[in-house]
Amino acid sequence: MRGANVGLLDADLHGPSTLKMLNIEKGQIKGDKEGIFPAEVTPHLKVMSMGFFLSSADTPVIWRGPVKMGAIRQFLEDVHWGELDYLIIDLPPGTGDEPLTIAQLIPDSTGTVIVTTPQDIALLDSKKAVNFAKILKIPIIGIIENMSGFNCPHCDEYIDIFKTGGGENAARELEVPFLGKIPLDHEIVECCDDGNPFVASDYKSESTESFKEIVAKIEDFANGN
Amino acid sequence: MRGANVGLLDADLHGPSTLKMLNIEKGQIKGDKEGIFPAEVTPHLKVMSMGFFLSSADTPVIWRGPVKMGAIRQFLEDVHWGELDYLIIDLPPGTGDEPLTIAQLIPDSTGTVIVTTPQDIALLDSKKAVNFAKILKIPIIGIIENMSGFNCPHCDEYIDIFKTGGGENAARELEVPFLGKIPLDHEIVECCDDGNPFVASDYKSESTESFKEIVAKIEDFANGN
Repeated sequence: MRGANVGLLDADLHGPSTLKMLNIEKGQIKGDKEGIFPAEVTPHLKVMSMGFFLSSADTPVIWRGPVKMGAIRQFLEDVHWGELDYLIIDLPPGTGDEPLTIAQLIPDSTGTVIVTTPQDIALLDSKKAVNFAKILKIPIIGIIENMSGFNCPHCDEYIDIFKTGGGENAARELEVPFLGKIPLDHEIVECCDDGNPFVASDYKSESTESFKEIVAKIEDFANGN
Repeated sequence: MRGANVGLLDADLHGPSTLKMLNIEKGQIKGDKEGIFPAEVTPHLKVMSMGFFLSSADTPVIWRGPVKMGAIRQFLEDVHWGELDYLIIDLPPGTGDEPLTIAQLIPDSTGTVIVTTPQDIALLDSKKAVNFAKILKIPIIGIIENMSGFNCPHCDEYIDIFKTGGGENAARELEVPFLGKIPLDHEIVECCDDGNPFVASDYKSESTESFKEIVAKIEDFANGN
């Protein structure tokens, strides 16, 4: 997506983490009579998140569904997104108000990406998310298996902390594309906490390559290839 | 809680995992004119979960907030819980309809336990949960730090995958009790996926002791000690 104009809408209203993960200051958004301007994190990346409107990072958003629906509608309709090539919407887990609102407000979306960890307990939820998309006729771009296996940084032995292959098996079973595996990697945790996007960091590992391959597959899907 | 009568209400309506984690068959609940009988997993443990009402484990619950509120109300009011010493309610992440409904229907609850992983991104959400409880005047039993550090099973070296100490620091900062750390442990993943409760399994590790110490602290709190 290098060079493309990307909008990122953090629709996890109760747990917005975009500001921290991208090191965005709260003061970066401005408004006018017609609406709000998203934060321009880079010349090609605009961001909107509930995090901009909280009095502190620890303030809870104690909202029931209908209020959340209104907020998401505003984030889509009253934000000056400008010309975008891609609008990426980050959703919380579950099949409730947030994804349902997005599905209804954007009936012609390109598709959905489901991120899971490989253990059975997590796959239960991911399979529900796939079936949610099928019922609502949202195209399924594919499943990503996150936290998939781990290599010990001391002895380099492989450890299956959260198992591996579960996401790939679920994709086969549900007949949806599998986009790739991202190994568990302490450096990803550090980058997220430091507000330093992992793929833009100097750190290179198996995970870096996985991210690139997955993004290429999503771009291909979006461009109809 | 050995010998005590415990009810477990799985109020994660979109992602119920109790049936799988406790190896409960769907057919184990029955109803009469006045309501539903919870599954009796052991003579001292009764369970109710949305999972009992799904046509398959992969079926999504595509519900908005008001419908979820009604379901939780039924789980509390129309279920024959009988005499219980403890009713434990498992909630999904976030500060939306599910916890808000519980807080309003059980205004005199003993308290809430907040489970977090140690990295900053997760702590953002946990701190919001603590403040949610403070605003709604729910006593805070304490914070549990899950997935806290990891010992390589091959070389026994310590690895800080999701960092460690974040939950403990957050507890100090927010002036709420800290209940303990549970290290990342592949055996817990296996037990959950196999429907074999980790603390009842033959497997013994540092995590087993952590679980016991945490439960003892929660019992002390509940009994006013």
